[in-house]
Amino acid sequence: MKIENSTLKKVLKKYREISLLSHIKATLDWDLNVNLPPLGSETRAIQSSYLSEMITNKWLDTKFRSLYEKAVTEKLTTVEEKAIIRNLGYGAKYYYNVPKDIIIEKDKTASEAFIIWRQAREENNYKKFLPSLTKLIDFDKTIARHLGYKDNPYDALLDLYEPELTAAECERLFNGLKKELVPLVKKITKSKDYSNTVSFVGASNHYPTPDQERIVHYIMQHMGFNSQAGRVDISAHPFTTELSRHDIRITTNYKETDFRESFTSTMHETGHALYEQGVNPDYDGTPLASGVSLGIHESLSRFWENMVGKNPIFLHSVSPIFKSFYQKQLHAVDEKSLIQSFNTVQPSLIRINADEVTYSLHIILRFEMENELINGNVQIKDAAEVWREKSKKLLGVASATDAEGILQDVHWAYGSFGYFPSYAMGNLYGAQFLATMKKKVDFDAVLAKGDLLLIKEWLDTNIHQYGSLYFPKELIKKVTGEKLDYTFFLNYLTEKYSRIYNLK
Amino acid sequence: MKIENSTLKKVLKKYREISLLSHIKATLDWDLNVNLPPLGSETRAIQSSYLSEMITNKWLDTKFRSLYEKAVTEKLTTVEEKAIIRNLGYGAKYYYNVPKDIIIEKDKTASEAFIIWRQAREENNYKKFLPSLTKLIDFDKTIARHLGYKDNPYDALLDLYEPELTAAECERLFNGLKKELVPLVKKITKSKDYSNTVSFVGASNHYPTPDQERIVHYIMQHMGFNSQAGRVDISAHPFTTELSRHDIRITTNYKETDFRESFTSTMHETGHALYEQGVNPDYDGTPLASGVSLGIHESLSRFWENMVGKNPIFLHSVSPIFKSFYQKQLHAVDEKSLIQSFNTVQPSLIRINADEVTYSLHIILRFEMENELINGNVQIKDAAEVWREKSKKLLGVASATDAEGILQDVHWAYGSFGYFPSYAMGNLYGAQFLATMKKKVDFDAVLAKGDLLLIKEWLDTNIHQYGSLYFPKELIKKVTGEKLDYTFFLNYLTEKYSRIYNLK
Repeated sequence: MKIENSTLKKVLKKYREISLLSHIKATLDWDLNVNLPPLGSETRAIQSSYLSEMITNKWLDTKFRSLYEKAVTEKLTTVEEKAIIRNLGYGAKYYYNVPKDIIIEKDKTASEAFIIWRQAREENNYKKFLPSLTKLIDFDKTIARHLGYKDNPYDALLDLYEPELTAAECERLFNGLKKELVPLVKKITKSKDYSNTVSFVGASNHYPTPDQERIVHYIMQHMGFNSQAGRVDISAHPFTTELSRHDIRITTNYKETDFRESFTSTMHETGHALYEQGVNPDYDGTPLASGVSLGIHESLSRFWENMVGKNPIFLHSVSPIFKSFYQKQLHAVDEKSLIQSFNTVQPSLIRINADEVTYSLHIILRFEMENELINGNVQIKDAAEVWREKSKKLLGVASATDAEGILQDVHWAYGSFGYFPSYAMGNLYGAQFLATMKKKVDFDAVLAKGDLLLIKEWLDTNIHQYGSLYFPKELIKKVTGEKLDYTFFLNYLTEKYSRIYNLK
Repeated sequence: MKIENSTLKKVLKKYREISLLSHIKATLDWDLNVNLPPLGSETRAIQSSYLSEMITNKWLDTKFRSLYEKAVTEKLTTVEEKAIIRNLGYGAKYYYNVPKDIIIEKDKTASEAFIIWRQAREENNYKKFLPSLTKLIDFDKTIARHLGYKDNPYDALLDLYEPELTAAECERLFNGLKKELVPLVKKITKSKDYSNTVSFVGASNHYPTPDQERIVHYIMQHMGFNSQAGRVDISAHPFTTELSRHDIRITTNYKETDFRESFTSTMHETGHALYEQGVNPDYDGTPLASGVSLGIHESLSRFWENMVGKNPIFLHSVSPIFKSFYQKQLHAVDEKSLIQSFNTVQPSLIRINADEVTYSLHIILRFEMENELINGNVQIKDAAEVWREKSKKLLGVASATDAEGILQDVHWAYGSFGYFPSYAMGNLYGAQFLATMKKKVDFDAVLAKGDLLLIKEWLDTNIHQYGSLYFPKELIKKVTGEKLDYTFFLNYLTEKYSRIYNLK
């Protein structure tokens, strides 16, 4: 990558320190989740906010700011230069419009809120969390005001996680989705094949961790994960993080009563990791160096997890491996049951356990809640009840407890309003990418042979390498030739589940 | 701890940032040794030097410096206040006397030298390392000049690792030692019992890692390691590091042909860790927060490794554990052989494999070499040959290759001249502590019962808790009531090995 503009060159030189500090912080956060002994957590929190504040100060540094503001007014010629200044604009908008004490105060409130939320969830006591939630929503309304928006304050928040996404766009997509998803779920769960699914996972079965580890390493290698530039560890909740351009780490978790979870969740996280490992190395240390948005990231991780990992043809090709490790546990399980068990559709209360079909409904619920809360259309004190009503309407189930309702997710306790929709966007992006990929790649044949590297290569060429060069809308257009259309996802689901459950 | 002086309070407030940054850097270095994927090393080096430079800049910050210089002139009353200003003086002496570009240049030279040294050692080519070594010795001579000294430039370097230690003092102690050690080694290795020792370790025996891990966890717990405030991992070379006051991590290494190494080396590292875990928590974030010197640290680690871990009575008490894990491998080994195998005395070429008796001779060799090199009494180009001569004289063996001679240690490649003597000082301190401990604690009875917590408690009360409050000389006096005397160590060795090998 050649940067011609001399002002931008100077900006990038200073930006490298922001990148460096962010990677250092990522290392500490990774260690927190993977290794930290309990008594180390207090000091680790101090270390982590010290680095956060240093990053904020780098953005607020007057020299950096004036260089950036000069670069904005200059004529930039290459696609890369323009993308760099556009991406810097996102940081600038945040750091230069939102007063520093609001950033710091919100961080502090969120740290406290996290502890209170954990207790509230344990005690199933929404009222306990109410004051924190009220404060955090107020902070995000204030932040939205400082960031600016045209129609809806929630747009300013959505834009932080998924550039250019608006509430109106979400409404359009999600209304289309839910109209079809709700009946599809009913159709599946009422089918004859569904009720005949054999379950082979239970307390009586045991899948030792070392075997699961071997399978996890096998699948990562087959997906093309570069273990010279990354690793896999164990943490309570699986995640992926970038410690430097050539050090992308994922985590997984082994449940000895069910081998499927570590398998599909590792494919999910490896999907994130392949994106980061595949970015053009020239972008190292610049604002182009990472995946462009949460939504695109989720499109790739969920692509590997669901569209590959739970694909019947792929499961057919890997089932001999499962059978060889779990001969005793699986000997009575026929292949149809195995495939169905990976693709059980079950409206449930908890998002993180949701299947591929109902998952988006969980997200739509959260989108509607957030939109109404930020706009004051729902009173925060009534939110737990509204959650219940929406859950009943969308999923057909509702929890008596708030622990399994409004208190189930950590996101609001972090003050991350606007984050959830990116998960559902990922499903839509992914299905549209898949439809395009199928024009060039004989997907079924590739899966039948287990040639996963061919898939990775397509993703490298068409998506991974660009990092943050194109914003999601532009990327979708560039890759698929058309703008985002939710029917790809609906068609994908209908086709797949009609086959698995013999739907008419 | 109450700090009365208001200037010192301000100094300490700023010093907390140095402590914070050092802990952040320690986390990155720990990860480098335990986890880092190969391609991550380049960026990690950049991250690490970025933090080093930040720490240097905190010391050079004019506000910090002027506060420190004001505090020096003020009247301080408590022991803690005086110790804090004395310890800060060590950092100040270094950062305010040695020009910043020399510090940075030496760091850079050492980074390059490390790579060259590794190649040179591989190729058994001292000449290849010669230019790097010459530069590094020059740097250390320059640094010594900036630091200042009375008699010998080497004193300025020794003082960096072991406060107040001088070359003259080393000479006095080491000459006394070697006079006795050389004949003692001969006496042991010529004894009848020595030649009858049965070896049970070899390629034919196999000690699986999971079993060794269980024993390692067992012994750490019995020594009183707080696993809520630390952990154990695997690295190529075992080490101990402090990631924060309540996060002390050790590493070990499992050799499947010999279970003894992970056992004694874990006791060694846990000895370091107990020191750090035992420091008065009030000292957190101040210059009193860590162990006072490398020598005192080694005295504790080597105390646990050798004086406890290889003690015949202790080995008798733990041998049922070894036998239960390694029933097959050890079934033909009687207890006497087991004890002798932990205490085999064998003059050898390589320091890190050396036994308790010959170890100090390896250090004396290095001390003499460094003293002569820094003073220009030996030409650097002749050093490999001088090494060989000294090895012959002290140990009775000399290597034909430089890889197993002058190139064996990493320390000089780091430019750490003055470091080695602290290892031998550790042996002397440890034996003197042991003699004192035995007046209060029935050591043999404690070991027979495996009551290691009683030993830890004595160390907590008499040594650990003080952190860096007392300098080594003062600490020895305070704990043992007398000044350092090398005969404690000689008596300890003579008595122990006379029993094990039935010496007359």
